[in-house]
Amino acid sequence: MSEEKEHITFEISPEFIDQVTQLIETKDDAKVYTFLNEYHFADIAETLEELDFDQAVYIIKLLDSEKTADILAELDEDIREKILEQLSAKEIAQEIEELDTDDAADIIAELPEERQEAVISEIEDEEHKAEIQELLTYDEDSAGGLMAKELVRVKENWTVLQCVREMRAQAESVTRVHSIYVVDKDEKLIGRLSLKDLLMAPDRAHISSVYIPKVDSVHVNDDAEEVAKVMQKYDLEAIPVVDDEKVLLGRITIDDIVDVIKEEAEKDYQLAAGITQDVESSDSIIELTKARIPWLFLGLLGGIGAAGIMEGFDAMLENFPILFFFTPLIAAMAGNVGVQSSAIIVQGLANDDVKGSINSRLLKEMFLAMLNGILLAIFLLLVVWIWKQHFLTALAISASLIVVIIVAGIVGTFVPLFLDKRGIDPAIATGPFITTSNDIFGILIYFWIARLILGI
Amino acid sequence: MSEEKEHITFEISPEFIDQVTQLIETKDDAKVYTFLNEYHFADIAETLEELDFDQAVYIIKLLDSEKTADILAELDEDIREKILEQLSAKEIAQEIEELDTDDAADIIAELPEERQEAVISEIEDEEHKAEIQELLTYDEDSAGGLMAKELVRVKENWTVLQCVREMRAQAESVTRVHSIYVVDKDEKLIGRLSLKDLLMAPDRAHISSVYIPKVDSVHVNDDAEEVAKVMQKYDLEAIPVVDDEKVLLGRITIDDIVDVIKEEAEKDYQLAAGITQDVESSDSIIELTKARIPWLFLGLLGGIGAAGIMEGFDAMLENFPILFFFTPLIAAMAGNVGVQSSAIIVQGLANDDVKGSINSRLLKEMFLAMLNGILLAIFLLLVVWIWKQHFLTALAISASLIVVIIVAGIVGTFVPLFLDKRGIDPAIATGPFITTSNDIFGILIYFWIARLILGI
Repeated sequence: MSEEKEHITFEISPEFIDQVTQLIETKDDAKVYTFLNEYHFADIAETLEELDFDQAVYIIKLLDSEKTADILAELDEDIREKILEQLSAKEIAQEIEELDTDDAADIIAELPEERQEAVISEIEDEEHKAEIQELLTYDEDSAGGLMAKELVRVKENWTVLQCVREMRAQAESVTRVHSIYVVDKDEKLIGRLSLKDLLMAPDRAHISSVYIPKVDSVHVNDDAEEVAKVMQKYDLEAIPVVDDEKVLLGRITIDDIVDVIKEEAEKDYQLAAGITQDVESSDSIIELTKARIPWLFLGLLGGIGAAGIMEGFDAMLENFPILFFFTPLIAAMAGNVGVQSSAIIVQGLANDDVKGSINSRLLKEMFLAMLNGILLAIFLLLVVWIWKQHFLTALAISASLIVVIIVAGIVGTFVPLFLDKRGIDPAIATGPFITTSNDIFGILIYFWIARLILGI
Repeated sequence: MSEEKEHITFEISPEFIDQVTQLIETKDDAKVYTFLNEYHFADIAETLEELDFDQAVYIIKLLDSEKTADILAELDEDIREKILEQLSAKEIAQEIEELDTDDAADIIAELPEERQEAVISEIEDEEHKAEIQELLTYDEDSAGGLMAKELVRVKENWTVLQCVREMRAQAESVTRVHSIYVVDKDEKLIGRLSLKDLLMAPDRAHISSVYIPKVDSVHVNDDAEEVAKVMQKYDLEAIPVVDDEKVLLGRITIDDIVDVIKEEAEKDYQLAAGITQDVESSDSIIELTKARIPWLFLGLLGGIGAAGIMEGFDAMLENFPILFFFTPLIAAMAGNVGVQSSAIIVQGLANDDVKGSINSRLLKEMFLAMLNGILLAIFLLLVVWIWKQHFLTALAISASLIVVIIVAGIVGTFVPLFLDKRGIDPAIATGPFITTSNDIFGILIYFWIARLILGI
């Protein structure tokens, strides 16, 4: 009865991969085709990512482009790129014909420039071709880069009946209708209608009398992240995209926004962890090294700086070696407090949730750090005092800890706020950058204060 | 013409807040009402978060519950809690009547237990009340906790015409239809229909001849994160929820899933930054301290441990004080590498993207860490050699750096994989936990190897 296997609890198991591999090895095309064709394209995409590259290419060439187009769109970018290298421009164009304009443009944009033109020239559907070419002109992080040309548009002077008839044609190519957009004679967006409204309106009514003139829209050059915020705030599942003249150009659906939100969150997370570019655990060692070593190198420079500072205080080595034993503690606390306070600010900025002036934020962080610092310092004071039986040393170490924590908190709060004001992504302030600078500051402050208290 | 102000590029400005504040101070209820009523509930919610508490309560009491219900649902949890304290059980019940069952249940669940019963008993619509009570029985992180009871269901033996008629009644209470769910006589889910399909089917056709028998569904006890993964993978905008007998209980829409994804990403990010619970920059100093001090205390213990280890090597102080100057560098590198490798694994696990066995992952990380370690160590060797003019010391420090980085990488890879296998959230391994343990390990390894090379 069903055209595809029930897939909802379907998880790609090693056994399933084995089964597919064995089936491919029989070289019985018909059998492989019949077997795989029953599965959802998202499941096949996941399977391909586990197979050998040759086998993946074999499957893409075997199945119908109606299915493989969706599989390709779903695949991990690295694997897709390699598979597309094995296909001719004509074969790629055939896949492209099956895809919605937004996915089609995304895939073409990934190709090397010469191939882009070759593929586009092989697309037979002239309208589809023109639409894809238009989409390729927009920045990929803008509303234009996210939108699809597929949507249902009706004219305000149509009747409901006429509208239903026209829609049957348009809706063929539109997977999910969401809203029906109403345009005037100049194709300017003037309102919307839901399918529900249409279903409930009398056949002879004019669209102009039933449509809702209030419609949210974004400009084609708006930033993708801004679009995501607007759609989330107003709980929209689709939003039309217009140009300066309010002419309806396309629409963005919530599933594209889910991707924007995820990518943004992953980028911030990776930056906080000291990873400079978008990598995955499956990437090559060289790729992973390129993403990881810049921050490590920064940390190395910080450590060399800290060593230089400590050498400057080496007169204290003889009488107070214990001060040097606590430098990793001081550096770690400065780093941790800095990361904590910067992470809260970065997340607050991402959610438009940071209120009040920079000064009031800094004051709050100062009190917060002071409270944390005093609590931790009391504990440390007791431990060192009992251990070393020397109150002044214990006092020197714990008093500097308080100051170090306060400074680290202020730096961690100030830097992302400052970067944000200057239009720089504040997330870069959360990782080893803040840790490293706080390490150096921390150790310098620590020895200054210790020298003051111990009177050397 | 429009019932609400165009809000798409609407940003709550300080000027707007001033305007609202001044208007409230005139105490002219009618004027405040007319002014605010034109704005979208999401904009009013944002405004309330900027106003004094008394003013926020005033506005909630002034506007119609049709509007305030949505405002309350949109508000930040902390502020909503305080406002609800100022409302009677009857007033809350009136707001609840206006909300969809999922939002209604979420708000009631936040109330203190005695109030929950008082509010529920004041709900007049018996069906709404029973539905909310049902939703309150599910775990908030399960499909049941996410779903709403509002959906459009039709029987398989209805005709299209009958269906449209019945739907007009049901669709009144359903904001977005998405799919029409088809059930058999026992209310078991057997298929679906899109509005588009219905719009295009002949009036006299039976639903049984036009519906699509393939329909994804999740079980009411399924984990919210699993539901999010399924909806993303198969690009679904709504999914029905069923019980063991396949009886249709409710449905989950993509906007709820967007919240799940965001919360998950924020939680992982905060854990990576050493923040134990969900806090915002606007929370109180006490709240923020409670979230931050546990990890700081862990770091403090780690630092004390490191100091203890260094004291054990104090025989080296006299001849090789420089070894002690590099302990912050060693600790920082161990921490940074550990965070990097654990973050990649945690993110990979969240995206079901970690392939191969634990052993092959560890092997890969070992090579990666070795490559990074060697590159960084060569640089450090040259710096220390030139600085101290003592090759053996430079060699001791840089050789240990390589080993420390490898161990840190392996620990950072192993711990989250191990936690995940044991069913513990691997994200707790990314923050100060991994940093602290790597600090201690790192310093211990560093002095061991240095002693070996320097032959003391």
